[in-house]
Amino acid sequence: VTWISVAVAQTDPLPSWNDGPAKQAIVTFVTDVTREGSPDFVPSPERIATFDNDGTLWIEQPIYVQFAYALDRVKALAPQHPEWRDTQPFKAVLEGDMAALAAAGEKGAVEIVAATHAGMAPAQFIGMVQAWLATAKHPRFDRPYQELVYQPMLEVLAYLRANGFKTFIVSGGGIEFIRAFAERSYGIPPNQVVGSSIVTKFERRGGLPTLFRLPQVNFVDDGPGKPVGINQHIGLQPIAAFGNSDGDLEMLQWTTEAGGRRLGVVVHHTDAEREYAYDRQSRVGKLDKALDAAAVDRWTVVDMKRDWKTIFPVKP
Amino acid sequence: VTWISVAVAQTDPLPSWNDGPAKQAIVTFVTDVTREGSPDFVPSPERIATFDNDGTLWIEQPIYVQFAYALDRVKALAPQHPEWRDTQPFKAVLEGDMAALAAAGEKGAVEIVAATHAGMAPAQFIGMVQAWLATAKHPRFDRPYQELVYQPMLEVLAYLRANGFKTFIVSGGGIEFIRAFAERSYGIPPNQVVGSSIVTKFERRGGLPTLFRLPQVNFVDDGPGKPVGINQHIGLQPIAAFGNSDGDLEMLQWTTEAGGRRLGVVVHHTDAEREYAYDRQSRVGKLDKALDAAAVDRWTVVDMKRDWKTIFPVKP
Ligand SMILES: [Ca+2]
Ligand SMILES: [Ca+2]
Repeated sequence: VTWISVAVAQTDPLPSWNDGPAKQAIVTFVTDVTREGSPDFVPSPERIATFDNDGTLWIEQPIYVQFAYALDRVKALAPQHPEWRDTQPFKAVLEGDMAALAAAGEKGAVEIVAATHAGMAPAQFIGMVQAWLATAKHPRFDRPYQELVYQPMLEVLAYLRANGFKTFIVSGGGIEFIRAFAERSYGIPPNQVVGSSIVTKFERRGGLPTLFRLPQVNFVDDGPGKPVGINQHIGLQPIAAFGNSDGDLEMLQWTTEAGGRRLGVVVHHTDAEREYAYDRQSRVGKLDKALDAAAVDRWTVVDMKRDWKTIFPVKP
Repeated sequence: VTWISVAVAQTDPLPSWNDGPAKQAIVTFVTDVTREGSPDFVPSPERIATFDNDGTLWIEQPIYVQFAYALDRVKALAPQHPEWRDTQPFKAVLEGDMAALAAAGEKGAVEIVAATHAGMAPAQFIGMVQAWLATAKHPRFDRPYQELVYQPMLEVLAYLRANGFKTFIVSGGGIEFIRAFAERSYGIPPNQVVGSSIVTKFERRGGLPTLFRLPQVNFVDDGPGKPVGINQHIGLQPIAAFGNSDGDLEMLQWTTEAGGRRLGVVVHHTDAEREYAYDRQSRVGKLDKALDAAAVDRWTVVDMKRDWKTIFPVKP
């Protein structure tokens, strides 16, 4: 329990939310599915709620936090790789040439992940991420990334759990990257994190059983991969899903379109002053198809500027 | 809660276990890791226990239950596949020719799985397995397979959970096959089942979001795959692991060899009268290397005949 824990007022489970349709939709849904005798009642073991991470539970601009980690790792590893000074995409990273980095595209991103995320045990990787999180700061807010989680969403997580829900993260980000902070930041244990992964191999090394992360994609938990990841890890269809971009489209559809009382929520970043404002044209967290689908499927669209009293937890 | 639920006596958490080294090893371990102030104390969130399923939690002779399901499905589907009468391995199944079936080997088994386990949604598959489990009976004991779970192991599951452990199944069997009964039989929810899987695909069909099981192997959760599956699904190293065959060797090593107070348990089938007796020479549930390793790594070997007062739950 840290200073970002949620102190839920007894009278208001979502104190950082302004009154309005978004808050009301969440509270009404929870009331409907938890009230015994309600036609919408759902037994506790089936109260599964899934949350995207980047842009839904914490900040994702100007670049994904995991990408910031990878860039910092490239810089840290550069002395051992003199060849990177003349090799893309590493040259671009070392020179801070974001245009060249963007030009390296998907292939460049995969090479950076392979160079920075593989070649160690999962526990080592998690330790490295935690060490980085302890010191790295967001370029605009000058605060550690773990402080740039969304206070209103922390309240939703706590509110759902207090009402017999199991909360899961279902992210396009790396499963082990997220496990490095999910328990501390969100109260979500490692086995309730679903994410993308690279291949991990078991072998005996130096007489000891070890796992080793290989530079090879195992699973992409994004878009149509999210329902697949949910099925693989959770084995139940969620009754509530929270996302913020087109990568959450299929998860939201899978959650809400099967019938029964369901909740789909899209966090719409509308607050350039307190955070960022972006949607259909954004390179990071593009929200276009899922915004159109929200109207069709009657998902709740959270207008950050209007609906959230505060964005980030206040330091004590 | 069914008639196979465990009524744990307050004075004896493992009433179906005879006093002896196996029972004592389990009780001493649980006491050591749960006593505050003990040098071996482990906080509750890290009390992870993993259980193999076939031969560890329920019967696996004369053939794996999932294989019995596949054979019955081949017979049920045969009228729609007249070509199977002349095509191996299906011909062997339909004629009950176990020698020809064995000769079809791994390739034959994969074909049978593809023909019987793919081509439907996960929820449909689970429904089919549940319908089959409701009627199929074990050839020797003439009881539904779900009644052929091991009463002493049900007590271990309940005992561990009562002591703040999270219990997981980690099986070479199919993850969704096991999910069809794990909650009812073992009190283990779908998201705490780790197993082998085939590829599942998301697509919109008839305007609805659907998942569809494809005839293609996704992950083999056996042998060195078990630590990998544990890492992927659980994200923590277990402190206790229970298995019965060489397929559990790496899981037991991964659990116990890293240091700290750990428990490794091997269920040794020694009771031909009440169940089956088999180990080093068995085609199903071969226990050879893991039996040797048990001595080296000081795992607890359960002698079913000696250690278990009863094997299966008594019908009320
Ligand atoms: Ca997102
Ligand atoms: Ca087994």
